[in-house]
Amino acid sequence: MTVHENFSIRHLTDAILESYEVESVIIKVGARDQISSTVVAEIVENLRMLIFAGFFGQKKLKMDSIEYYVGDLLESLVYHLQKQITRALLNVTEDEPKAEREAERVTHEFLSRVPELRRLLATDVEAFFDGDPAAFNTDEIIWSYPGIYAIMVYRVAHELYLLGVPLIPRMMTESAHGKTGIDIHPGATVGHHFFVDHGTGIVIGETTIIGNHVKIYQGVTLGALSTRGGQVLKGVKRHPTIEDHVTIYSGASILGGATVIGEGVVIGSNAFITKSVPEKTRVSVKNPELQFKDDDTTRSVEFNQEEFWDYVI
Amino acid sequence: MTVHENFSIRHLTDAILESYEVESVIIKVGARDQISSTVVAEIVENLRMLIFAGFFGQKKLKMDSIEYYVGDLLESLVYHLQKQITRALLNVTEDEPKAEREAERVTHEFLSRVPELRRLLATDVEAFFDGDPAAFNTDEIIWSYPGIYAIMVYRVAHELYLLGVPLIPRMMTESAHGKTGIDIHPGATVGHHFFVDHGTGIVIGETTIIGNHVKIYQGVTLGALSTRGGQVLKGVKRHPTIEDHVTIYSGASILGGATVIGEGVVIGSNAFITKSVPEKTRVSVKNPELQFKDDDTTRSVEFNQEEFWDYVI
Amino acid sequence: MTVHENFSIRHLTDAILESYEVESVIIKVGARDQISSTVVAEIVENLRMLIFAGFFGQKKLKMDSIEYYVGDLLESLVYHLQKQITRALLNVTEDEPKAEREAERVTHEFLSRVPELRRLLATDVEAFFDGDPAAFNTDEIIWSYPGIYAIMVYRVAHELYLLGVPLIPRMMTESAHGKTGIDIHPGATVGHHFFVDHGTGIVIGETTIIGNHVKIYQGVTLGALSTRGGQVLKGVKRHPTIEDHVTIYSGASILGGATVIGEGVVIGSNAFITKSVPEKTRVSVKNPELQFKDDDTTRSVEFNQEEFWDYVI
Repeated sequence: MTVHENFSIRHLTDAILESYEVESVIIKVGARDQISSTVVAEIVENLRMLIFAGFFGQKKLKMDSIEYYVGDLLESLVYHLQKQITRALLNVTEDEPKAEREAERVTHEFLSRVPELRRLLATDVEAFFDGDPAAFNTDEIIWSYPGIYAIMVYRVAHELYLLGVPLIPRMMTESAHGKTGIDIHPGATVGHHFFVDHGTGIVIGETTIIGNHVKIYQGVTLGALSTRGGQVLKGVKRHPTIEDHVTIYSGASILGGATVIGEGVVIGSNAFITKSVPEKTRVSVKNPELQFKDDDTTRSVEFNQEEFWDYVI
Repeated sequence: MTVHENFSIRHLTDAILESYEVESVIIKVGARDQISSTVVAEIVENLRMLIFAGFFGQKKLKMDSIEYYVGDLLESLVYHLQKQITRALLNVTEDEPKAEREAERVTHEFLSRVPELRRLLATDVEAFFDGDPAAFNTDEIIWSYPGIYAIMVYRVAHELYLLGVPLIPRMMTESAHGKTGIDIHPGATVGHHFFVDHGTGIVIGETTIIGNHVKIYQGVTLGALSTRGGQVLKGVKRHPTIEDHVTIYSGASILGGATVIGEGVVIGSNAFITKSVPEKTRVSVKNPELQFKDDDTTRSVEFNQEEFWDYVI
Repeated sequence: MTVHENFSIRHLTDAILESYEVESVIIKVGARDQISSTVVAEIVENLRMLIFAGFFGQKKLKMDSIEYYVGDLLESLVYHLQKQITRALLNVTEDEPKAEREAERVTHEFLSRVPELRRLLATDVEAFFDGDPAAFNTDEIIWSYPGIYAIMVYRVAHELYLLGVPLIPRMMTESAHGKTGIDIHPGATVGHHFFVDHGTGIVIGETTIIGNHVKIYQGVTLGALSTRGGQVLKGVKRHPTIEDHVTIYSGASILGGATVIGEGVVIGSNAFITKSVPEKTRVSVKNPELQFKDDDTTRSVEFNQEEFWDYVI
């Protein structure tokens, strides 16, 4: 490195150290270890290998060694989860021994719920296969479908959220959001047989409640009505309730904490809903007039609404 | 590890082994090697290095060593493709030698089509450059544009799909979907000079047929009309046909297996189309009335449709 | 490898070499080193570790060693940035020594702007926290929020774009687009306190100008009106101007280089805007009629527009 470079690097270093003092909120300084998003990502991959055993990773799943397959994964999960959860809890308490005890408790409580998570995810895989004519078999869904990946990560993160773990659940769902374009907040509540197709652009807010056998397509927003309050709205139910056997087609928005979509409702593509809808209703946008033009004429036609009930990709 | 931890891990292991017996559909047990999504991802990267030679990877492409560059890539591709295709075929046949012979045949047939894939992709790169004022040069398109990456992976996966390889093609396109937000089913048929701009949220269904010189923007759905049948609809043409020189602007949905968009048609942003459109027509949503409010008045205006023919980002 | 395989690989190699001669535009041949997207990705990660110090990477940020933390990062950044920028500049000039001198100048100029980038990003983090009731604290935003990642990469790429570096800025923003679904062209101009929520599907074009305290939600397009010119339109202002304190809700499109959205304007969800909007106006789509159906009746209702001012997820 040239003298000039040496000089300029010292110069740049000083300028940045100065800026660390001014913009100190966006640095994380201290001897304490921080949550590692890399390790959290590895934890998610190990949980996936535990839940969908034999589908991912290098290890082969053989009947005669299945116990070691599970034991190895659990040992590594216990170790890393406890460490990361401890670090997360130290963001809300100063008491290190307390954080460690709590992390151990939470880790074991969480891992004891994995069989229940598997039970739910088996119903999701079933819903995906029944709902998608393009699915070759359930293996393809587990190997390839972004929807099942996003739901798995959400279900895992939701349990940690319920157990009061800060930061890590959102870190998990945002990493799945990055991989799939499906943004499910870990605070949302979702029943069994949940089907998400394609999924890109889906947003499901923190206080959303979703029942069983619900189908949601790409670009659907389950959101809130008003941002006015900002942080003041923390904890308030701001997002809708979707009851059992509801189907919501692509691009629809359903907004508001008091909005309840009744059992068996079908919401058509691009509908914009801010009020409750009674059960067994089918809602669709009355198709906006389309204008057809060619070189010599202009024709206006309206589509027959009947035609696009219940479409799917 | 403490005795307590040892105990609890044994306890957790038993619970999970039990759940493997109950939810056995979502585990993959057996001595047989499974498809590795990691290896499939490496295959895609090697194919990209073969198709867009010299743009990606560590190896430099020099004229005097170009033969070794290609030979090395092909050797590795032949080896890994045969192995993964064999594993894929063993999901549909028990006959291992037959699967191996078939995998060898398919691998060589597929690789012999790479020059044709390059010919098509060269037309796509040309269409991208001609279509996007923001493009610096064709190198930038190959290095940076998600659309060209998604189309490359689709074209590769489509050939494997045509050669009857199960699972792997969808694994490839879903991985590209994850990277780009562009979801093109490997079963779709796409002509030359295909231009996809921005691309996030695009969904192109399994039985879609797309002609030459077609332009598609972000958030466009080429989908199916009805989900009623589920798996029963497998194989039926459920998605539209798009003829040559069609442009489809952002957020438009075109649905139904009988829907044909004629040559030279322009579909305006957010249009929702469930019927065929005759050639050389320009279709747009008659813009919904907008409401403008300020503190003292409320005005309603309608936009002049003329203004937003043929917009692009 | 069997003789047969050897033969066929030689055969395939010849076919591909032939195709390299025909489709020579999509190969990059020559002794010269090319830009490495892998190294560019590492540069972005190192810049993130420099800007949000202590949040990412293995190195702990301790007060007593903070100078070394910064110095190490800067040394590696200077080395790799100069190398990659030199390679980028050699796409526009043949003069290698000139390219190297220019790369050194640009690298040091760019790194001297990092404190200013940190100042801006601190205002963005503040805007995210104030705007999102679901945010636990500012750490969660820095660790998890795709919007803050996309804005950081955009701000970095924009500085390189202003310094006349070809190819690399777009490579950076497209990689962030892939990770987040948020597509901000490095040429766009964006003020302080920029808030992007969820973000999937957002497209912000090359000549867009965005003021301070602007909020944008998922699926918003800030685009151009006409594609007719293609490459001819390079450099022309094709994208809108958004003034201070504007909020644009999900799915809205604002198009055209002459379109100015005045200070304090609120654009409702799914609005399609191709004309300027005066300051302090609230624009919303007059909600399209919705059709409600059940087994025995068909009711049509229109929503009360009031209800969905200012909603957010």
